[in-house]
Amino acid sequence: MVKQERAARTRRALIQAAAEVFAEVGFVPASLATISKRAGVSNGALHFHFANKIMLAEAVEAEAADKLRRLTESARARQGDSLQSVVDAVHELMNALARDVVVRAGFQLAGDIARRQASPLRKEWQRWVEDSLRRAARGGALADGVSWVDAARVIVVLTVGLEVLGGKDSFWLSQQNVTRFCELLLLPLTDRKAVGTLVCSGPPRQATVSVGVPSQVAARERKL
Amino acid sequence: MVKQERAARTRRALIQAAAEVFAEVGFVPASLATISKRAGVSNGALHFHFANKIMLAEAVEAEAADKLRRLTESARARQGDSLQSVVDAVHELMNALARDVVVRAGFQLAGDIARRQASPLRKEWQRWVEDSLRRAARGGALADGVSWVDAARVIVVLTVGLEVLGGKDSFWLSQQNVTRFCELLLLPLTDRKAVGTLVCSGPPRQATVSVGVPSQVAARERKL
Repeated sequence: MVKQERAARTRRALIQAAAEVFAEVGFVPASLATISKRAGVSNGALHFHFANKIMLAEAVEAEAADKLRRLTESARARQGDSLQSVVDAVHELMNALARDVVVRAGFQLAGDIARRQASPLRKEWQRWVEDSLRRAARGGALADGVSWVDAARVIVVLTVGLEVLGGKDSFWLSQQNVTRFCELLLLPLTDRKAVGTLVCSGPPRQATVSVGVPSQVAARERKL
Repeated sequence: MVKQERAARTRRALIQAAAEVFAEVGFVPASLATISKRAGVSNGALHFHFANKIMLAEAVEAEAADKLRRLTESARARQGDSLQSVVDAVHELMNALARDVVVRAGFQLAGDIARRQASPLRKEWQRWVEDSLRRAARGGALADGVSWVDAARVIVVLTVGLEVLGGKDSFWLSQQNVTRFCELLLLPLTDRKAVGTLVCSGPPRQATVSVGVPSQVAARERKL
């Protein structure tokens, strides 16, 4: 393996390990020693790639933002300017939160009150939801009296709520639960003619696997 | 002032100061020295009342739980086993989160991943919501095909989402926003005959004042 490849691999391992440790204990208590040990590299190697913990957190957030962007772009490419693109993206984001520790840690860091850096993830998601609902509303997708602002707020509150509750109990992130929320909350906001064509169950779920991370999801129990 | 009164007053000042500091910086970075200084008491006085930071956090949570209980009991006393009791309690909880730093810090501590103690607040709220919707459903308050479990999940996700988003932007907690969410999300779940009698704007808002805490709310701007 050439030197550059090895460096890239070490960097990826550090981001993955940092995401795991941030997700487990939070940003402030996470120690660089724990992260380098988890990644199987020396402290020196960690400091070669990342000057401090904030830079590691930013790398986790940047990778989570990449994944979020790929997921929203793919939903729009498949579904165009329709409500279905939003339903699909919500399903895929919830699936990513359940299965990919980098995405989960990225969003948790965004909500971590102890970290003062402004975080891009929730903002980026909110902007995409607003833009998509504006487009869908132009096409007449929303019920009479429901604005794109209303619909965007509903989606943003729903996804933040599911994200936070899903951190303790992955049932909230499951396809079954997200489908039911779509039926209960989105169908009433949808134009009557469009209701029949909205597929609340979203796309088939694929495991967005984080290599080397055991899924903590299956073991959890449905609480409500 | 007799000795006991003075002790009780010091204890209250410490809980108030701890809530402010936890809400501002999070549990892990909060220092006992900052808290005692904020409360205007010596470090020794702090340690006389609270052996460590965990006990202070538990006292904040206990006081927030008291306030939550008073708020839900009063909504039920006024509105009985109706959907209106839930709408009123949601409004009052959101108002308390906006105006009372002890309630806000209590809920934030519950969500603080760095604190391993199981926290009672969200669980208590969830149980009350479930119980209230079970009662309301027995009286025929929900639309055909909507179970009390469905309705309870919607309320729980909605309130967690508003709580978390409201921590950065108090518009989410405002009467205007909560009323709109009731119209968009709860009216479609309500029995057709009951829709006309549900008051989505909730009870008149009273300032649940935390004495000595400047409201950080008014200064914030509506973001969406």
